[in-house]
Amino acid sequence: MRQDNLAPSPLVATVDFQADGIQHGFLRMPYSRDDSAWGSVLIPITVARNGDGPTALLTGGNHGDEYEGPIALFDLAQRLTLEEITGRVIILPAMNYPAFRAGTRTSPIDKGNLNRLFPGSPVGTPSQKIADYVTRYLLPMAHVVLDFHSGGKTLDFLPFAAAHALDDSRQEEECIAAVAAFGAPWSVKMREIDAVGMFDTTVEQLGKVFVTTELGGGGTATAQSAGIAKRGAANLLRHAGILSGAVEERPTRWLDMPSDDCFTFSEIDGMMEPLVDLGDAVRKGQPIGRAWPIDRTGVAPYEYTAKMDGILAARHFPGLVKAGDCIAVLGVTD
Amino acid sequence: MRQDNLAPSPLVATVDFQADGIQHGFLRMPYSRDDSAWGSVLIPITVARNGDGPTALLTGGNHGDEYEGPIALFDLAQRLTLEEITGRVIILPAMNYPAFRAGTRTSPIDKGNLNRLFPGSPVGTPSQKIADYVTRYLLPMAHVVLDFHSGGKTLDFLPFAAAHALDDSRQEEECIAAVAAFGAPWSVKMREIDAVGMFDTTVEQLGKVFVTTELGGGGTATAQSAGIAKRGAANLLRHAGILSGAVEERPTRWLDMPSDDCFTFSEIDGMMEPLVDLGDAVRKGQPIGRAWPIDRTGVAPYEYTAKMDGILAARHFPGLVKAGDCIAVLGVTD
Amino acid sequence: MRQDNLAPSPLVATVDFQADGIQHGFLRMPYSRDDSAWGSVLIPITVARNGDGPTALLTGGNHGDEYEGPIALFDLAQRLTLEEITGRVIILPAMNYPAFRAGTRTSPIDKGNLNRLFPGSPVGTPSQKIADYVTRYLLPMAHVVLDFHSGGKTLDFLPFAAAHALDDSRQEEECIAAVAAFGAPWSVKMREIDAVGMFDTTVEQLGKVFVTTELGGGGTATAQSAGIAKRGAANLLRHAGILSGAVEERPTRWLDMPSDDCFTFSEIDGMMEPLVDLGDAVRKGQPIGRAWPIDRTGVAPYEYTAKMDGILAARHFPGLVKAGDCIAVLGVTD
Amino acid sequence: MRQDNLAPSPLVATVDFQADGIQHGFLRMPYSRDDSAWGSVLIPITVARNGDGPTALLTGGNHGDEYEGPIALFDLAQRLTLEEITGRVIILPAMNYPAFRAGTRTSPIDKGNLNRLFPGSPVGTPSQKIADYVTRYLLPMAHVVLDFHSGGKTLDFLPFAAAHALDDSRQEEECIAAVAAFGAPWSVKMREIDAVGMFDTTVEQLGKVFVTTELGGGGTATAQSAGIAKRGAANLLRHAGILSGAVEERPTRWLDMPSDDCFTFSEIDGMMEPLVDLGDAVRKGQPIGRAWPIDRTGVAPYEYTAKMDGILAARHFPGLVKAGDCIAVLGVTD
Amino acid sequence: MRQDNLAPSPLVATVDFQADGIQHGFLRMPYSRDDSAWGSVLIPITVARNGDGPTALLTGGNHGDEYEGPIALFDLAQRLTLEEITGRVIILPAMNYPAFRAGTRTSPIDKGNLNRLFPGSPVGTPSQKIADYVTRYLLPMAHVVLDFHSGGKTLDFLPFAAAHALDDSRQEEECIAAVAAFGAPWSVKMREIDAVGMFDTTVEQLGKVFVTTELGGGGTATAQSAGIAKRGAANLLRHAGILSGAVEERPTRWLDMPSDDCFTFSEIDGMMEPLVDLGDAVRKGQPIGRAWPIDRTGVAPYEYTAKMDGILAARHFPGLVKAGDCIAVLGVTD
Amino acid sequence: MRQDNLAPSPLVATVDFQADGIQHGFLRMPYSRDDSAWGSVLIPITVARNGDGPTALLTGGNHGDEYEGPIALFDLAQRLTLEEITGRVIILPAMNYPAFRAGTRTSPIDKGNLNRLFPGSPVGTPSQKIADYVTRYLLPMAHVVLDFHSGGKTLDFLPFAAAHALDDSRQEEECIAAVAAFGAPWSVKMREIDAVGMFDTTVEQLGKVFVTTELGGGGTATAQSAGIAKRGAANLLRHAGILSGAVEERPTRWLDMPSDDCFTFSEIDGMMEPLVDLGDAVRKGQPIGRAWPIDRTGVAPYEYTAKMDGILAARHFPGLVKAGDCIAVLGVTD
Repeated sequence: MRQDNLAPSPLVATVDFQADGIQHGFLRMPYSRDDSAWGSVLIPITVARNGDGPTALLTGGNHGDEYEGPIALFDLAQRLTLEEITGRVIILPAMNYPAFRAGTRTSPIDKGNLNRLFPGSPVGTPSQKIADYVTRYLLPMAHVVLDFHSGGKTLDFLPFAAAHALDDSRQEEECIAAVAAFGAPWSVKMREIDAVGMFDTTVEQLGKVFVTTELGGGGTATAQSAGIAKRGAANLLRHAGILSGAVEERPTRWLDMPSDDCFTFSEIDGMMEPLVDLGDAVRKGQPIGRAWPIDRTGVAPYEYTAKMDGILAARHFPGLVKAGDCIAVLGVTD
Repeated sequence: MRQDNLAPSPLVATVDFQADGIQHGFLRMPYSRDDSAWGSVLIPITVARNGDGPTALLTGGNHGDEYEGPIALFDLAQRLTLEEITGRVIILPAMNYPAFRAGTRTSPIDKGNLNRLFPGSPVGTPSQKIADYVTRYLLPMAHVVLDFHSGGKTLDFLPFAAAHALDDSRQEEECIAAVAAFGAPWSVKMREIDAVGMFDTTVEQLGKVFVTTELGGGGTATAQSAGIAKRGAANLLRHAGILSGAVEERPTRWLDMPSDDCFTFSEIDGMMEPLVDLGDAVRKGQPIGRAWPIDRTGVAPYEYTAKMDGILAARHFPGLVKAGDCIAVLGVTD
Repeated sequence: MRQDNLAPSPLVATVDFQADGIQHGFLRMPYSRDDSAWGSVLIPITVARNGDGPTALLTGGNHGDEYEGPIALFDLAQRLTLEEITGRVIILPAMNYPAFRAGTRTSPIDKGNLNRLFPGSPVGTPSQKIADYVTRYLLPMAHVVLDFHSGGKTLDFLPFAAAHALDDSRQEEECIAAVAAFGAPWSVKMREIDAVGMFDTTVEQLGKVFVTTELGGGGTATAQSAGIAKRGAANLLRHAGILSGAVEERPTRWLDMPSDDCFTFSEIDGMMEPLVDLGDAVRKGQPIGRAWPIDRTGVAPYEYTAKMDGILAARHFPGLVKAGDCIAVLGVTD
Repeated sequence: MRQDNLAPSPLVATVDFQADGIQHGFLRMPYSRDDSAWGSVLIPITVARNGDGPTALLTGGNHGDEYEGPIALFDLAQRLTLEEITGRVIILPAMNYPAFRAGTRTSPIDKGNLNRLFPGSPVGTPSQKIADYVTRYLLPMAHVVLDFHSGGKTLDFLPFAAAHALDDSRQEEECIAAVAAFGAPWSVKMREIDAVGMFDTTVEQLGKVFVTTELGGGGTATAQSAGIAKRGAANLLRHAGILSGAVEERPTRWLDMPSDDCFTFSEIDGMMEPLVDLGDAVRKGQPIGRAWPIDRTGVAPYEYTAKMDGILAARHFPGLVKAGDCIAVLGVTD
Repeated sequence: MRQDNLAPSPLVATVDFQADGIQHGFLRMPYSRDDSAWGSVLIPITVARNGDGPTALLTGGNHGDEYEGPIALFDLAQRLTLEEITGRVIILPAMNYPAFRAGTRTSPIDKGNLNRLFPGSPVGTPSQKIADYVTRYLLPMAHVVLDFHSGGKTLDFLPFAAAHALDDSRQEEECIAAVAAFGAPWSVKMREIDAVGMFDTTVEQLGKVFVTTELGGGGTATAQSAGIAKRGAANLLRHAGILSGAVEERPTRWLDMPSDDCFTFSEIDGMMEPLVDLGDAVRKGQPIGRAWPIDRTGVAPYEYTAKMDGILAARHFPGLVKAGDCIAVLGVTD
Repeated sequence: MRQDNLAPSPLVATVDFQADGIQHGFLRMPYSRDDSAWGSVLIPITVARNGDGPTALLTGGNHGDEYEGPIALFDLAQRLTLEEITGRVIILPAMNYPAFRAGTRTSPIDKGNLNRLFPGSPVGTPSQKIADYVTRYLLPMAHVVLDFHSGGKTLDFLPFAAAHALDDSRQEEECIAAVAAFGAPWSVKMREIDAVGMFDTTVEQLGKVFVTTELGGGGTATAQSAGIAKRGAANLLRHAGILSGAVEERPTRWLDMPSDDCFTFSEIDGMMEPLVDLGDAVRKGQPIGRAWPIDRTGVAPYEYTAKMDGILAARHFPGLVKAGDCIAVLGVTD
């Protein structure tokens, strides 16, 4: 998949991935800029290793405004004890750290959407350098990979874990089993149409067991959604045989997004009035939302109707909407 | 309360408040600026009048990132028919229109927090001019005033309507009755400590029946919260004898915020992990949230505990928190 | 008009207004800021004095994006010789120098619209300090005052000089005579409705002979419009007996703007399509411009029609228009 | 010219280019960003088709601050009827829509100057994606292409239509004939020196009949210049046999810009004083403009003189000038 | 000096100024804003009290880009033990905390220059509220006040402590004695010309013993300059009888700035070339610096010469200079 | 090293490099942008040639906030006379002119760090175009190249000149000899670890004699550091046989930075307290600096200790520090 003649990564880890024990450190990425000529970015990382065994790579903050993953992973990194694990856990709770620190989806440094920049490059933008380091240095160590997502500041999702439809059916089965072990209220088997540049694609092409999630949104977390993330991470480590104890089983419903009819886009700038909420069942033709022009009163709103039967699985979050924004996503249950 | 020798307002209404019928127009506020020397701001307004009778003033967008009120009021302005009313309804769905249009709490023009600038001034900033026009031209026409609020982008509330404790017990009773008619899931009788500059204070000092609300937050609305706002506005108009039909009664629970112990503030910058959600009951000493330092892993979070028994009535919304942010408000039920 | 107990101005002139000769210097205004703790603003000024006689104060750059005045005055300051004058000329070609330097109507320092801040204050914002210095130090020396305006980046005008209708009919007559001497293609006798804060008002209340202008617009100048300004300034100085030689007479047409019907405002955001140009005669009801919604094709534009017979005297300049912008001003000829 | 193995464009048209009738829709370009994770840009487009026949592609808003083209094309899109056409008209009135909406030459999203990014790329910046879609999806359908330009906010031009000197003399002849049919007051046969990345080059290399224009400038339009654009577009469609009726003939003067001596650049920052206006004839050595230092009075301006005999065909528009800005372009008539 | 009927301060201290012991806490200032509706600013404060005795108020960060004071005071706050003091020390190491946190002279919140806003106001901007709290709540407790300054990012000073010439000669003597005890390499007796709004003035008018400093500059500190600040603070506390032990005496040279001739201002924008360094002796007429125009080579620089004999006591720090910046200050030794 | 099929540079020199005499002119780089459609950047350049002989290329402003080089080179360009030279001197005092004019390390146009963009590209960003022009048009003319650096706004250095360890020992010797001739107080033989994109590497790969410097820092210059730069430039020209006269010899100390232990990075955001100053000798284990958390008092600082014996050769300059910033560099003397 990658050229072998790439330059070494400029990122340097202050932790030793081969050493037993629990280490909290950084990936240090040099970053020369107007306010620090010899500056760098310190990306927090935890490595916990207890002898031989499988390795799990747990990542949050791929997008910087999604919080269930970082909460679960900062918590796990601080609570994890050597006694309860076999093998290795690598925790990167805020993968695109500059974005996470700014509370924005993309990096304020280079506007990079990290999840469209894999496998990255050692000589590109800071976001590309992070992608490259993860791809060439961390992924080869991992057997199972969990990447946390939520809706961020502009979308809201029913909480689900997901695997992709894969060419390798055995790999796909393992991923599906991992999603089931995660135990989110909803589970999705996804068909990505535009998978170019996604972390998911890079991980799966390397043959790893991969789980991704969408656990809420709005740029916040709740006690409930954070709890799903914490339990899911622990369940996955147990499922992989790294964390001791049995998977804490939870009921899940499988959800599918079969066609373009699932997606509705706004055609005007205005104010969004939702007519159904997440999890509500809707019938084809039913109004699901309205966009109000805000520059005058007395004008009828644009009304958007469901193009299929389904359940509201995701929605535009901010009160204002721009033409072109995705305002609703419908899913269907098995 | 006000000097009588104030200059006339520079705002001009394109509607005639004395005319029968339904008019959709603007308050035009001159606003000379770099990108329009002879520019102005057009604030949408609707006036519906059907003969003599009481006048209701309904306002939204006092803070520009709160959406239940504007949704209910754009909707009401567009649906209202003359046949169903007696008297007059003045609808100002986006009172601080520049803030509303920008989707921000305060005005991008002058950073004005409109709800701290009443009674305003005809020669001040644009926000002060709006406050002044509402105070001197609209309020004198009104008998009952409903001002919609929600938590905005940075707070989230249990949905409630509220009245203030007032010196005039008859006025207070009428306000409490209006809150009950509104019919939100929760109702609050508030004691404002710092009421200087609030619209509420100006309205109440003029002897009007006044209802305010907090109907959700996060800078969004849901079908559910928008429904509470719509029903509440209609109920209040019915209660006031302006809209025909009976009040649609709904159960409400009364909530009190009796002391400073209700409020918890963060003492660090970091990431918020909520441990309880809105509506959850908590006991004194129970952990309600944690703030994680985000610059490294392996460090224990700051934990915040309840200073009293109560119900979580409001919370900090964004995933990141700054030292000094209010992270939780507890209320007690009767 | 002013309190006598104001603090001294913090501005200091590097020129001596009482000395004979031609001096080029500055008004130095201290301005402490993040990028210069002990910084100041240097406002260019020229004083030319040749013995006793009347004093003219010539100002440009009251708004920072209007160029006919500054061109005429930088040119005059550089060409003027002592031999050709009697008395004194004070030239302030870029009165709101921070705005002029930025090419913006208002000051980038404090967003001050200088022509709404007179008579100013010695302890206010930098814009207020400039107004105060001009009011308390320069105006008392002047007998005749010429303040140059044009439309700036957002308006375009037929080129005219103007005087105001004044209570003191003798003063008004002198001003009208000065306007006629200026010799612009158009001349206007104005009735300001909102004169609060204008330089004009401050000057006229001090009993001075005052001429103002609008000589074009768009944030540019042409050889033609700059020529009108240069000739007008010289003519006024000759008319005042300060510059030797006879007034260079030019035909002028008198224009009036008698009512609110002269002004048309846009009610939508969009793209402006003018249907008549400056100087064109229009009839009541004739379409004069259209505003196109730009977010989709196939939608009819908003059409604006003349509310009276007249001549197009001013128009909105930028291709895009915002709701509330003044898009056309009609005038009537005698 | 292009690799055949490019990825499909991410842009999707909501109109069917093969269907008869008039459709108003959008090119929807996905654009994920901090304020809309699943956002997109909707570029307005109109397709009018009446059976078989030639296809014209009419584009405006290649640069976002040029208005004659968008006015003519929004107007045409709204007025065109099926009855009056044979074949197909594709109207893209605001090609670089993000720039057009912002009123800026380049895109506020990626600072892209669209007219230097052709033939574009499906995996580049948003501006590159637009260029790619036009190149690979719209141009192959077209026989004749008209791309509207004006001077934008910083330049002003004599109104002209233009064709390029081309290697294929038959193609060149057809382009010249199309320019003549357009019927602008001035016509130009251009020799581009730096044609890399221009839309013009891409169109011409595909063998199409191509007309470009410069119809004014300053970031505005007049009734007169908009009229030239409207008439020119209709004339070209008639000339191509798509629109019924005869070409409305207008006199035009042919203008040439034969050498580098046509161009004058400022060597200082300062204020521009034009000494000649558009259309004025100048002699070699004649002063055509002056740049005044603005930080002090009494200093002589930099004077710029004509390097050849000619007519002032274009000029720097803003009142302020920076070192390196082109301040004047001379042309010669046949 | 102040009205007694001011509203109570909105600031609340989390420390008890009357309690014995060492407390580290905050002044909490409510600050509602777009990114935190119920936010506040937490200004760090330390109070150390050991029984009865005098009170010292030590402040740093009056300007936010000056570091000797904050270093000395964070250090003192962390090291101070109860055993070594008698009475009370109040330490406010970053008085204008928003400015200090941003590393800017003025507050990023309101652009307030704190040292021109005393005595402040409880209902003004955040900077004014801080000034008011210090004036009305902290100053009345203090007997001796030390306010640290340095040159900040744009000025550099010889390190000195200073007292003002005061009407009350006994107070002046006490201040001079305190300056001597501080023990900086240089000492200055200052005559402020424009003392309006300064903290110094407010403190002195309350009759306190007051010491101010300028201990370096450039927006940095050195081991040497930080050492001067640490030793000076300890010396002053010893001198006041609060800290045990004897004053650590150091030689100091007294410096005077007797007239306007001490100050030199740049008259052009350009690049500064210093010809003498801090502490160098200069003679009247000697070149002390040059400002180079940077837009072209081959042009002679503006040369600035000393207007008097003296020692270079302060200088403009950044490499670039703007017209109006103070570039050099000369002092004379006794 | 470079492809021969690169497009010609868009930069044009207004000077003739082959002509005898002293010429002051520009490199004109076309730069189309929103505020000047046909704008360009004028980079000042001086060429002095007196017959045949070697050519020196002297560059400053590679980083825009470093001043010793520009001061020495603007001065040299203005003072140099033909009589005193043999051969040619090309002086580019502000190579990344947009950055220099803004006073920032990187270009405000494209955020380009010029010293990481060599050999550049004729079709890239403006910074890349500058690099390309210097590489392909200026370097081939040069025999000796001097590129001035200092620490800029965020670093401070002991003043040194430096050469790199090179594969070609003869070239290395010549560079070392040139460094010695420069005569800075300190001299360094550097081993760059990450030399990709540096001007140094491009120059050296072309076989030129190359000297670089670090002559101070903080975004300022002193009379002393500017003097080192002026004398060094003259010495190098004398050493190369271009400037008449003998090298003015000065003692220098050779400094080495042998390992990663030389560098210390901050691990927290906070305020820097230096414990040693530039030039101070330190022992392994000795505290050299402390970083104070600034959000509260009473917390111990992070202390950084020397990892080796050495001399403090460079340090972080601003008072505030971010995690990841380099705070100290130690060197060892021979």
